[in-house]
Amino acid sequence: MTIYNAPTRDMDFLLHDVLQVSGADLPGYAELDRDFTSAILEAAGQLATDMLAPLNLPGDQQGCKLENGVVRTPEGYKAAFEAVKEGGWTGLDCDPAYGGQGMPYVMGVAAGEIFVSANMAFNMYQGLTHGAYSAIHAHGTEDQKQTYLPKMVSCEWTGTMNLTEPHCGTDLGLLRTKAEPQDDGSYLITGQKIFISAGDHDLSENVIHLVLAKAPGGGEGTKGISLFIVPKFLVNEDGSLGERNGVSVGALEHKMGIHSNATCVMNYDSAKGWLLGDLHKGMRAMFTMMNEARVGVGLQGYAVAEAAYQNAVAYAKDRLQGRAVTGAENPSGPADPLIVHPDIRRALMDQKSFLEGARALTFWGANLIDRGHNGDAAAEGLVSLLTPVIKGFLTDKGFDSAVQAQQVYGGHGYIEEHGMSQFVRDARITMIYEGANGVQALDLVGRKLAQDGGKHVMAFFEELKGFIKANEGDATLKADFLDPLKAASKDLQAAAMFFMQNGMKNPNHALAGSYDFMHLFGHTVLGYMWARMAVAAQKALTEGTGDADFLNTKLATGRYYMKRQLPMTATHLARIETGADPVMALTADQF
Amino acid sequence: MTIYNAPTRDMDFLLHDVLQVSGADLPGYAELDRDFTSAILEAAGQLATDMLAPLNLPGDQQGCKLENGVVRTPEGYKAAFEAVKEGGWTGLDCDPAYGGQGMPYVMGVAAGEIFVSANMAFNMYQGLTHGAYSAIHAHGTEDQKQTYLPKMVSCEWTGTMNLTEPHCGTDLGLLRTKAEPQDDGSYLITGQKIFISAGDHDLSENVIHLVLAKAPGGGEGTKGISLFIVPKFLVNEDGSLGERNGVSVGALEHKMGIHSNATCVMNYDSAKGWLLGDLHKGMRAMFTMMNEARVGVGLQGYAVAEAAYQNAVAYAKDRLQGRAVTGAENPSGPADPLIVHPDIRRALMDQKSFLEGARALTFWGANLIDRGHNGDAAAEGLVSLLTPVIKGFLTDKGFDSAVQAQQVYGGHGYIEEHGMSQFVRDARITMIYEGANGVQALDLVGRKLAQDGGKHVMAFFEELKGFIKANEGDATLKADFLDPLKAASKDLQAAAMFFMQNGMKNPNHALAGSYDFMHLFGHTVLGYMWARMAVAAQKALTEGTGDADFLNTKLATGRYYMKRQLPMTATHLARIETGADPVMALTADQF
Repeated sequence: MTIYNAPTRDMDFLLHDVLQVSGADLPGYAELDRDFTSAILEAAGQLATDMLAPLNLPGDQQGCKLENGVVRTPEGYKAAFEAVKEGGWTGLDCDPAYGGQGMPYVMGVAAGEIFVSANMAFNMYQGLTHGAYSAIHAHGTEDQKQTYLPKMVSCEWTGTMNLTEPHCGTDLGLLRTKAEPQDDGSYLITGQKIFISAGDHDLSENVIHLVLAKAPGGGEGTKGISLFIVPKFLVNEDGSLGERNGVSVGALEHKMGIHSNATCVMNYDSAKGWLLGDLHKGMRAMFTMMNEARVGVGLQGYAVAEAAYQNAVAYAKDRLQGRAVTGAENPSGPADPLIVHPDIRRALMDQKSFLEGARALTFWGANLIDRGHNGDAAAEGLVSLLTPVIKGFLTDKGFDSAVQAQQVYGGHGYIEEHGMSQFVRDARITMIYEGANGVQALDLVGRKLAQDGGKHVMAFFEELKGFIKANEGDATLKADFLDPLKAASKDLQAAAMFFMQNGMKNPNHALAGSYDFMHLFGHTVLGYMWARMAVAAQKALTEGTGDADFLNTKLATGRYYMKRQLPMTATHLARIETGADPVMALTADQF
Repeated sequence: MTIYNAPTRDMDFLLHDVLQVSGADLPGYAELDRDFTSAILEAAGQLATDMLAPLNLPGDQQGCKLENGVVRTPEGYKAAFEAVKEGGWTGLDCDPAYGGQGMPYVMGVAAGEIFVSANMAFNMYQGLTHGAYSAIHAHGTEDQKQTYLPKMVSCEWTGTMNLTEPHCGTDLGLLRTKAEPQDDGSYLITGQKIFISAGDHDLSENVIHLVLAKAPGGGEGTKGISLFIVPKFLVNEDGSLGERNGVSVGALEHKMGIHSNATCVMNYDSAKGWLLGDLHKGMRAMFTMMNEARVGVGLQGYAVAEAAYQNAVAYAKDRLQGRAVTGAENPSGPADPLIVHPDIRRALMDQKSFLEGARALTFWGANLIDRGHNGDAAAEGLVSLLTPVIKGFLTDKGFDSAVQAQQVYGGHGYIEEHGMSQFVRDARITMIYEGANGVQALDLVGRKLAQDGGKHVMAFFEELKGFIKANEGDATLKADFLDPLKAASKDLQAAAMFFMQNGMKNPNHALAGSYDFMHLFGHTVLGYMWARMAVAAQKALTEGTGDADFLNTKLATGRYYMKRQLPMTATHLARIETGADPVMALTADQF
């Protein structure tokens, strides 16, 4: 059995000392004082620890079962889902007009991290619903909103996203699912979709599928794609459930992880669907939600690693093995706990310094999304730039971090009963879905860097510069945090410059370095987060507010990141500056 | 279903162009001409492709089953094991005095890689037997050798190694299994051992367990440990099988991977055992075989990744998705194959350049072991230094490489039916068993660096220096290979110097950098391997011997490694030079 305790103290520090949410002039932010956010996150933590985390390992072992066309979730999932619904957690940041609690997205992210850490596969049932909710909220007619949103906010009905088909994932222009217009304004949808998370299950009365399909007259490729609402059960005029629609589960996928989330092959056989948003503009409608969806997956990457880390720490304190090289620290016992060994420390510090930086970046990203929703174009541009970094870097590093946590357990980490294998297997999907990380890197370098004339990346560099300048009066902060950040930022700028100078001649010079650039950017922005946290911690220490032990730990953890992780930027730059030639040297046959 | 084809051409190049085995003045080496080694490796490859690889995925899905105290292996394993035995593969590098074929270890390693790539979990049944064979061969009485070795060479009987107990893995001084001396010279063994690979199964008539246990009078800790031979069935005077011994399978472990190898909890209940080697010198007897055992696990790390890579290449050529940014390369098709995309190339080149370097290092290590067995103390010292690097670096990077291969498959990589998940799950254990990689790093920095007054690491640096000097007349080789190698070697020397200067004051300054040092060493020695391969390839090209396309591919792959992987040495050095303070800054409670 694994343990999990919500890191509410760290969240409190981020929300109030770093992001200073309650002082921000944003709708809903004024209410976010410390007491209020603490109460919410403590309650989320309680539910996570008491009810969701204990189901994580059994849920993985039992998995989902397809019986007579119906998917059954593991034991206890139905009751836990009811508890989440009853607590109002499913609509935390949803529109009050449809039954939501109307809190900012940043609070949805904070509570979301807690639920994902406790049980990622379980939380996906509401997570996917939230995504579908957002799409209908943004693009639906008022009638569609009234029909679907209240039930989806409460998760009486859950939602899905149907993009992938057997022969196409990233390249949606190839998709074949057809939508035939009917006289009553509806469409008949026919085709097969795969990898549909929460595609069917026994936790809700209805499942509202959002399906990408091609309606006649839209032209080739992605231009011809529209988005449709296809409910599992048709909805009557009075809102009650009508007959079964022509959509069924073809199979459950056998996956490496997230076993307790039903990943379905969905067959659409003249299923009734209704256009969501404009005809032939389905890709645009889908991509409206992309920043949030990708930030949500980045969050999963580190949230699973957070749970793995907590267990690794507990094991390292408990397991007696060997003696500290500097002298026994547990002389009355047969051996010292693992945590005395420097290499175990290194592994734990690598994890801790990544996780806290990742949390800061994700919360900041959510804060920028809130600003963007409120009309701040600069914030929207910045988070659009950061989104592939949050998704790609945090899931790559989250997976690595979970692997390190598993490693602390030695042989026991390989045994499923300890739960460490599950964290690794679950974390692995986050690098793949919602755009594989190579696609994130392509998005970053191929689109986001140059977006709006490169304005957003320039703004990012300006922000770093301003921040460094404003804080370098403190000699200790300067040496420990600002100087390393400046060096990383210089590497990032040099890489961007290399792309500008060489990508024009041959775009492969940029694309061959895209993955390294995503990581170089990730380290730099985590360095920035650590510098901001250090400034906030130093301020609280100076002012005597907050818990000194927590704040000093924060500073020490940050120094570790700056000293031991940030030097990676130099290697990424070196790789980038070798350009396309080493990467493209072979013919396909020479592999 | 996954594919696998033995890389015999690359092995041929390593054996003959790089290591020049048939010219070496070592027993058995003179026979290793190209035709002979080719014939052997082609035959191994045939067996691997036809019989072992097709069982890999089904074996993973079926796993082993414990029924009425007996372990059943998956369907087809028995027949495949018979085929391996009949081919004489189990005794390839065993002593002819006991039925072996007497080939050098380097040939055992080459064939071993092929079998591991095809089916790692299956190959462990003979791999563990080989380890037990070596222990008895080195430490057994002539009577013990006659009793056990012929049957173990043929794998009619298989072997195991029993070290770990529930409360101790790395720290064997804590072990509790007891050995009570009997009047007839035998011992009664009582205790529980866990994580016993191939602990029981239906592939052989008997299982010969080698068990570490404490006999009276040996003192505390590891000093009191002896090694015992404990057969599953007692052996009669005439060599026939007698009664069942008091050893039984308590349970099969549920593991992340290597499902088709039976990992057993073994219960010893007054089981009859016989001392192997000297009383109270069990650790020493066990560690005689350690270099080979650890090289064998390093081999597993990259061999599994090799199989994953081959499948990723096939998928990247086959799967149509998106268009090359420089213009369609498959204009008549609906999309271009994945392999046109620079970031897919990067992932494949990362894998290919690692795998070929890893193979070279492992073959060289095996060659050094052969030299060591033949009385070359310098070779023995050098391979003893390299062993933790081969084990730790190749398994870490092998795992990363398998993860990259899985990533090429996108969402399909996460589905078990494609087999990519299995490669990742199987590779994961290699970082853990036979000494977790953190323990390898400790062994390298805490023991091997300073061994014999630091003589072996000095010899390594001298070897690099001599090699660079001998070959830097060729300006292209110098720029592409020798200069980067020189830079990496300088980083490695600087790290060793840092340990010398600071480790005296506080050993934590060295141990906090041990893991980075292992990787820094790994990159440097792979850089050296690539430089040696480049020299050999260049020579063959100049002389017009060999396949020019293969040789040019080799050079291009090597240039990739030098340009894109070797720069990591700088980051590792930077991490090392921050010393112990960032790593040890927190108290245990602050984690």
